[in-house]
Amino acid sequence: MRWADDTLIALNQRALPLKEEYLSLKSVDEVVEAIGVLTVRGAPLIGIAAAYGLCLTTNLGDDALFADSCRRFIDIRPTAVNLRWAVERMAGFRTRNLRCDNLRELMIEEARRTHAEDAEMCVRIGESGNSIVPEHCRILTHCNAGALATGGIGTALGIIYTAHFSGKRVEVWVDETRPVLQGARLTAWELSKAGVPYKLISDSMVGHLMAQGRIDLVITGADRVAANLDYANKIGTYSLAVLAKYHGIPFYAAAPSSTFDPACPNGKSIVIEQRPENEIRYVGQSQVAPSDAPVYNPAFDVTPHELVTGIITEKGILRP
Amino acid sequence: MRWADDTLIALNQRALPLKEEYLSLKSVDEVVEAIGVLTVRGAPLIGIAAAYGLCLTTNLGDDALFADSCRRFIDIRPTAVNLRWAVERMAGFRTRNLRCDNLRELMIEEARRTHAEDAEMCVRIGESGNSIVPEHCRILTHCNAGALATGGIGTALGIIYTAHFSGKRVEVWVDETRPVLQGARLTAWELSKAGVPYKLISDSMVGHLMAQGRIDLVITGADRVAANLDYANKIGTYSLAVLAKYHGIPFYAAAPSSTFDPACPNGKSIVIEQRPENEIRYVGQSQVAPSDAPVYNPAFDVTPHELVTGIITEKGILRP
Repeated sequence: MRWADDTLIALNQRALPLKEEYLSLKSVDEVVEAIGVLTVRGAPLIGIAAAYGLCLTTNLGDDALFADSCRRFIDIRPTAVNLRWAVERMAGFRTRNLRCDNLRELMIEEARRTHAEDAEMCVRIGESGNSIVPEHCRILTHCNAGALATGGIGTALGIIYTAHFSGKRVEVWVDETRPVLQGARLTAWELSKAGVPYKLISDSMVGHLMAQGRIDLVITGADRVAANLDYANKIGTYSLAVLAKYHGIPFYAAAPSSTFDPACPNGKSIVIEQRPENEIRYVGQSQVAPSDAPVYNPAFDVTPHELVTGIITEKGILRP
Repeated sequence: MRWADDTLIALNQRALPLKEEYLSLKSVDEVVEAIGVLTVRGAPLIGIAAAYGLCLTTNLGDDALFADSCRRFIDIRPTAVNLRWAVERMAGFRTRNLRCDNLRELMIEEARRTHAEDAEMCVRIGESGNSIVPEHCRILTHCNAGALATGGIGTALGIIYTAHFSGKRVEVWVDETRPVLQGARLTAWELSKAGVPYKLISDSMVGHLMAQGRIDLVITGADRVAANLDYANKIGTYSLAVLAKYHGIPFYAAAPSSTFDPACPNGKSIVIEQRPENEIRYVGQSQVAPSDAPVYNPAFDVTPHELVTGIITEKGILRP
């Protein structure tokens, strides 16, 4: 993701891994839409996109118009707290600089700082997390918490990259992460590019691998961490946490501070986004179920802190 | 599935739910191929298909040729024991009737009996299993253990149909069952046709539903039951069993006697079939992962008896 000529340029993540296609987003509408349909996704990255996106508000001096932009970014995806975090940061910055002639330039700089800070946090999460990765380690990750999901090298994958490039023998199990297949489409693509050894599996294979003693460690990203360290993440995370507990396998989440929501006391207070039914009935263009099949499609679930070994942040590891 | 004019007529299960297309299989080669590529699937049904398929051996009086047919059916899918069970039944029958002029007619009758007995066993499993279904029950099933998988109303779905048509308020959670999506493609289709209320989910959503108290009972089919009641079934079954245990939810398998392998002492002795990598890289015609993504694709896993509440058979319920 980058900003050039009053345009937010973003990789179209829906087109991966078949095409590397960049979108030029030139209005609040276009950025909101890109986040809603998941062409831009990943908790930290949608925060960064919202920070840049707010700079596209046609008249930044108009309070009502700006408040409307803010509301639209916060509402488009309710579970990840990073949208709200970025919007609040940008709104505070705007208020403090409202009388400056070059408000738009200043806000673009602030969005760039948000982006750069996220990249820096990824590096620190990578270093922090590398301390829990043994010399030879078979790591399961879920969904995509990598370079594609952040402004830097990623959170969960940031740790994996750091361990790999520090010379450890890391092997990654990538679960495909139905329904949107971020594991198959994005994490597999990222790890291929980086030359990190991995194998792709379906989500249903994790228990079988754990029973065979073939997974040493689980690291996921996070979309919102509550005050008691319960956390929301991509649907399926909770099942992995239960399986890890049953098999005695350490289970970590990795997330920057922007993903923490201290106002949220526990996981029960987190709103779970429901996604369209056709995400289950179709895969790409292929219909895989009766066209009128009733569907339940929550995008996230909540993993209670008692199943979590630790949450790896840029400031160190929090243990519930 | 039916036999007419020296032809085995079978629904092409790969084409469901988009097309109801029947295949006319006229040789051992064609039946073996249909089982191998999953146009004919389901542990009891592939046993029945093998029984009919053996009747297509060009010269039934030729011992070497018949032994070759038998071997090909047994080898095509190694995990479900029903193939071997059906082949041994037909081979024994052939030996006893080798001197009869009308050997082919007699063997076709024996295959029809195998088929009819399976249908009868489904009815009895349905009745047996109905005893454990409460008046209002939200049941999770995995893969397809229904009419499409058997010679009758199904095993796991046979119980669900019996409970539903006896007036109980049954609601079914159907997990899609990646990679081959038998839940989405087949179970959803069957339940729609039968008018049984259901909702389709991805495999990763089960833990989230259990944590919310929205699943009362799990019933799966089985591909091979060992002497100690460990059982092999579609990949993902073991994860469901661990999740059910963690949440205190009763977990049953349903299977006819032909699925029991008393010669197999426990789950460790069961050979797990590995399937082609492209089943994970593609869904239908849609590529969902890098074309060279390394893949692990076991078709089955083993659920140890300590996670199983009971195995529902035509003779009653076995409790480990």
